[in-house]
Amino acid sequence: MTATIEHANDVYPTRLDGGYGVLPRHDQVVWGTTEDGPMDQQSLESYDENGYLAIPELITPEEVDELRAERQRLCNDPSILNDERTIVETASQEVRSIFEVHKISDVIARLAADPRVAGRARQVLGSDVYIHQSRINFKPGFGGGDFAWHSDFETWHAEDGLPRMRTVSISISLTDNHSYNGPLMIMPGTHRSYVSCGGTTPEDNYKASLMMQGAGVPDTKTLTKMADTYGIDVLAGAAGSAVMFDCNCMHGSNGNITPYPRSNVFLVFNSVENTAVEPFSATKPRPTFIGARDFTPVG
Amino acid sequence: MTATIEHANDVYPTRLDGGYGVLPRHDQVVWGTTEDGPMDQQSLESYDENGYLAIPELITPEEVDELRAERQRLCNDPSILNDERTIVETASQEVRSIFEVHKISDVIARLAADPRVAGRARQVLGSDVYIHQSRINFKPGFGGGDFAWHSDFETWHAEDGLPRMRTVSISISLTDNHSYNGPLMIMPGTHRSYVSCGGTTPEDNYKASLMMQGAGVPDTKTLTKMADTYGIDVLAGAAGSAVMFDCNCMHGSNGNITPYPRSNVFLVFNSVENTAVEPFSATKPRPTFIGARDFTPVG
Repeated sequence: MTATIEHANDVYPTRLDGGYGVLPRHDQVVWGTTEDGPMDQQSLESYDENGYLAIPELITPEEVDELRAERQRLCNDPSILNDERTIVETASQEVRSIFEVHKISDVIARLAADPRVAGRARQVLGSDVYIHQSRINFKPGFGGGDFAWHSDFETWHAEDGLPRMRTVSISISLTDNHSYNGPLMIMPGTHRSYVSCGGTTPEDNYKASLMMQGAGVPDTKTLTKMADTYGIDVLAGAAGSAVMFDCNCMHGSNGNITPYPRSNVFLVFNSVENTAVEPFSATKPRPTFIGARDFTPVG
Repeated sequence: MTATIEHANDVYPTRLDGGYGVLPRHDQVVWGTTEDGPMDQQSLESYDENGYLAIPELITPEEVDELRAERQRLCNDPSILNDERTIVETASQEVRSIFEVHKISDVIARLAADPRVAGRARQVLGSDVYIHQSRINFKPGFGGGDFAWHSDFETWHAEDGLPRMRTVSISISLTDNHSYNGPLMIMPGTHRSYVSCGGTTPEDNYKASLMMQGAGVPDTKTLTKMADTYGIDVLAGAAGSAVMFDCNCMHGSNGNITPYPRSNVFLVFNSVENTAVEPFSATKPRPTFIGARDFTPVG
């Protein structure tokens, strides 16, 4: 019943077989205050304005080493390799992503619940938070692929049923990000504009486009106008640094011909006051390892 | 006879079906002095050390406009579109490159002969120069492709028969190059090491790999070691700026998901004391629109 009412009044319509359009955001960006967590007023204001915040040295070099070792351990575990939550590159047989990694690995569960991490998410979202998605990624050098521009929220709304924009991603780097090895790029300020996409969601869309390369990709005209208006920030940063960004940021990354691969832990925190309902533009929700249905608070 | 003697004593062997190897350079980098052209001592020393030189504002904004209009004129000319020297993207029907453009366009012929351009080439190479290759390029945004790391000289030696390293490329930007839209990247200092490549040259290799994506690509182990040793410079620069770089620089570029395409005029000047002989590792030379056999000096 809740779902039906919410869907009838959906302020973020998308993939309804119409055209593309830019709609205003109806949700605040920062819900908490300096009293709610580790970030100061300037950090909160910067996040509010740009839709993201770069955090140098979020974790220590020792923690980076521990997480890299943990990733290696997982990649060497046959039961993990055969798990549907593990994405293996067909050609190279290399592990690209392990989803729901906070449930698979105690090391990553601890990281996700750490006050430096979950504490920041709670502060921005002004409530308890749960993990909507988690993964550890490895993007190789010498031709690693790109990710086209997209807003995560558009997919999480259309395919997972997140009702409103009250979700934050924290990406923690396990390798150095240079301007030249395909780092995260964000158009600062775009989190305040919702790009409604054309088309409809194909059945089991996630299988073909696990990273949103198909449905949910904005049109080039809108993207050009947004880039002209907001510019493009390139998020370089050393291993151990992090970027936290709003669910509706327009972001993407170029490919990487350099010898330097990129690896990160990617954690998506959603407010417990914004739990998933039925998808807004798909016949059924994505699997729970991609979009959680367990709303137990973290930490 | 000349060719046979030179081939027997080839100091830059490659594609001889052996392995990969790094050999020393046997040629100087800068052959002229400050008296021979527009560059000062500091510029010549920087070029000598890094193997490249960035030149801001080589041409004026009005000249950039003129060249962009000339490119558009060429792209609208049916006889140019049907010319084998024009590379058209199959999917989009967009013109990606027009080769031998200094013979097709008076505007580009004048640019190539300009003292700011040919004068710099003569100064670096210490002799008269001719154009070994020229083209005007257009690389689109929203997924424009990458170019893997390579040394141009390796191909020009193997497939075109340039005997020694006495060749310079000047790339003049007709659009802004940002760190994020797939600019030229160079490993500074690599021009002093020659990477001999494995394999052999397939018949008509240029058709499949017009930009050297096939034979002539160094192995990843050597590239990793070079990147660790020399680093990677990202050549951002405004429209009208240029980069001149030694024929043996290890260089490449990432793809481009941004809305901002890249266009440049690319001119390769070779010393008249280094004219092409028979290819060193191919059964026949590439077509003359890719590797010139007319050695008439420029300007």
